[in-house]
Amino acid sequence: MLEITPKLDNQSEKPLYVQLYDYIKQEIKMGNLTPDIKLPSKRRLAAHLSLSQNTIEAAYEQLIAEGYLLSIPRKGYYVCELDQNLADSNGQQSANFIKEKPYQDPKFLYDFTQIGVDARSFPFGVFRKLTNDILRSENDRLLKLGHPQGDYDFRKAIAKYLYESRGVCCSPSQMIIGAGTQYLIRLLFQLLQEGIFAVEDPGYHRRHVAFEKWERVKMIPLDQEGMMVSRLEESGANIAFVTPSHQFPCGMIMPISRRMQLLHWANMGEGRYIIEDDYDSEFRYSGKPIPALQGLDTNEKVVYMGTFSKALLPSLRVSYMVLPKPLIEIYQNEYFFYAQTVSRMDQDLLRRFLEEGHWEKQISKMRVIYHKKRDILVTEIMKQFPDSAEIIGQDSGLHVLVRVNNGMTEQELIDQAGRFHSKVYPLSAYGSHDNKTVLLGYASLSEAEIHDAVKMLAEAWF
Amino acid sequence: MLEITPKLDNQSEKPLYVQLYDYIKQEIKMGNLTPDIKLPSKRRLAAHLSLSQNTIEAAYEQLIAEGYLLSIPRKGYYVCELDQNLADSNGQQSANFIKEKPYQDPKFLYDFTQIGVDARSFPFGVFRKLTNDILRSENDRLLKLGHPQGDYDFRKAIAKYLYESRGVCCSPSQMIIGAGTQYLIRLLFQLLQEGIFAVEDPGYHRRHVAFEKWERVKMIPLDQEGMMVSRLEESGANIAFVTPSHQFPCGMIMPISRRMQLLHWANMGEGRYIIEDDYDSEFRYSGKPIPALQGLDTNEKVVYMGTFSKALLPSLRVSYMVLPKPLIEIYQNEYFFYAQTVSRMDQDLLRRFLEEGHWEKQISKMRVIYHKKRDILVTEIMKQFPDSAEIIGQDSGLHVLVRVNNGMTEQELIDQAGRFHSKVYPLSAYGSHDNKTVLLGYASLSEAEIHDAVKMLAEAWF
Repeated sequence: MLEITPKLDNQSEKPLYVQLYDYIKQEIKMGNLTPDIKLPSKRRLAAHLSLSQNTIEAAYEQLIAEGYLLSIPRKGYYVCELDQNLADSNGQQSANFIKEKPYQDPKFLYDFTQIGVDARSFPFGVFRKLTNDILRSENDRLLKLGHPQGDYDFRKAIAKYLYESRGVCCSPSQMIIGAGTQYLIRLLFQLLQEGIFAVEDPGYHRRHVAFEKWERVKMIPLDQEGMMVSRLEESGANIAFVTPSHQFPCGMIMPISRRMQLLHWANMGEGRYIIEDDYDSEFRYSGKPIPALQGLDTNEKVVYMGTFSKALLPSLRVSYMVLPKPLIEIYQNEYFFYAQTVSRMDQDLLRRFLEEGHWEKQISKMRVIYHKKRDILVTEIMKQFPDSAEIIGQDSGLHVLVRVNNGMTEQELIDQAGRFHSKVYPLSAYGSHDNKTVLLGYASLSEAEIHDAVKMLAEAWF
Repeated sequence: MLEITPKLDNQSEKPLYVQLYDYIKQEIKMGNLTPDIKLPSKRRLAAHLSLSQNTIEAAYEQLIAEGYLLSIPRKGYYVCELDQNLADSNGQQSANFIKEKPYQDPKFLYDFTQIGVDARSFPFGVFRKLTNDILRSENDRLLKLGHPQGDYDFRKAIAKYLYESRGVCCSPSQMIIGAGTQYLIRLLFQLLQEGIFAVEDPGYHRRHVAFEKWERVKMIPLDQEGMMVSRLEESGANIAFVTPSHQFPCGMIMPISRRMQLLHWANMGEGRYIIEDDYDSEFRYSGKPIPALQGLDTNEKVVYMGTFSKALLPSLRVSYMVLPKPLIEIYQNEYFFYAQTVSRMDQDLLRRFLEEGHWEKQISKMRVIYHKKRDILVTEIMKQFPDSAEIIGQDSGLHVLVRVNNGMTEQELIDQAGRFHSKVYPLSAYGSHDNKTVLLGYASLSEAEIHDAVKMLAEAWF
């Protein structure tokens, strides 16, 4: 086995895997580990250094992400040829050197991100089988550029699912597929050029809508039931972005009465629309299901949006929106020349996944898994945090909020968790001024990791 | 075998396959063909009706596209359950009925579209093998949301290819992957908010840029060498969109002297940029290769754009752009929160396709195939059209222009071709006022079809 002999310091502030990562990176940059050298497997290196495999994995993953290592399935980890820029970044940079902006932060062992899924349950086998069926020369129609709104059969399969599971009532012809919800929202902005946009505050859309249309955005506060319709009315806005199934980030589920009020608001003014973002409606752990606003609407006032990225696979960029008649007409008359952004093979894969019942099976399976994870998270927090934590928005979705009454501010909570190798997320990013509450997503952590991570947080915060 | 007994009229203006399509559609709507009935295979129905398999295929394809039939690989063609809207469309429509806007026109046997590839040569086997390698639980990192610019390894593989084949010199860190060139151009508009845009006239970008930024667009005429720099200078624009490898649609290749003039123009003013769209640089049949403008630029003035959709697979929505330093900085500071629009599995598939040499092999193979198709097209036109056609822009790319000197206008040429079941495309759509020239793409027609189609055109036009 290749000798990897870092000096690791158990007492250091720096976690062990960051030390290991630094060491290997330096060895590569100095040319001691040269291109195409094979590194020891995680298991062997863990044994050799008396570390956990998790530690080795965290270091390797980061080196892969930064282009120092390459992981070849069933073969192992190899040192990459450095491009000049990576090599240069060790000192003698050219004037025009462009630095890679890192996307993930390597410093954490437990990341409570709200963007992620349970990787162990992903149906790789089904995906493989379906893809093998699709990638055949009989399917050469899939090579041609398809319909701008997405393939009719795929839209039809989604419409059927939405009708059965969410009470959304639509024709496939009023649906548009797109590479992610952000993409579709930007298309919506083009359809609603003269709009004044109302967003939930705090809320997810607050960031995105405000960024692009800051001069035309009204922040609308929430009460226990969601967006306050009286404040919406006063604001003068005509387009309201809402997340009624599971308000992001606060987690309340909008009751039917508030839904009817919202629809009433929309019906009372010309050019008013509601954008219903149903981003994680699939996961609901208690209470009766409430039909989507779109299904309650009889006046072509609701745009319904949903996604496969949240519940199935964040890296699969497939979302959809259902437009009411006046908006689909603007789209078809003026924006039909935009090519579809989702590959046709991906569309066909998901169509079969829906039609053959895999999606429903997968969602049922994940609901059980996530329900259990949520229970563990909530129970552990209650057990570990002495009387001083409050859990918010746990009835559905893939994250909860935790208000920690230990005198720390949001930033202190985050920093202190970081010192214990755990990443929790600020609510202020979504406009909250609460300042003692953080966001914990739990989908991508294992049950054991949730246990350990909450212990870490208890040490960090109390 | 199920009885399909249409009355077909050989003398009708309506092509046979449209008659067949109409008949089957009517049978489904009237309930004579009910859901899940299996239709005869193309071969059997062709024998039964004494028609060519092509005719059956054209009818089936259109029925599939409209949701009446479903094609199940290795099983056959089935009647779909009609959704209410399709059924309703037979008369009793509800007030809010939303009609499917058709994307492809079923009326043509030979479609000279410029968007398409040779379906028979698509490497299904390689795609299947690579996908099987990727869809394994060891690759669970691919489930996580990836880097907003696209995966580093994928960008690195593209950068290497661009350097070797096009002389483009860039770091992976200045590249952004996106779901199609239109998507990336819209992102560029956000980076260049104060820009005044110059586009080639006639040209591809004329349509798209003008649509979104009509109040800030200058049309720049072309001479034999491409965009006229003197007119660009006079226009007051600061951002020039060009297609130097193969001007779209006119087909000229910009010589090195004009490239240097363009770069000089860019260097002479602050905030000036050139957008080099190298959409089909892979196919070049004569003359020496000329390096990309990006490779000649030493002052961070060129945005380079390319795509996998054109040469490999139109329905695979993957394009990329290389930004000069000032623009990548704006992007990284202000737009980094936009999630990547291409699925990570697709990125990984294409990365392996590049790294393992399949892309180069495929391009070499396609170059021979397309070269031959172009030769057949050009030879046939010369043979069939008596002294009165001129072929323009045949040195590269996947389409040519044909100027027909028979006294017909562009619209007459198109209409007359249509009567002979052939679709040719207007140059006026790209701003040309020539009015006797049409565009013929040849990538997706077979050699035999090109033969037959040109004969049809000769009958139609002379």
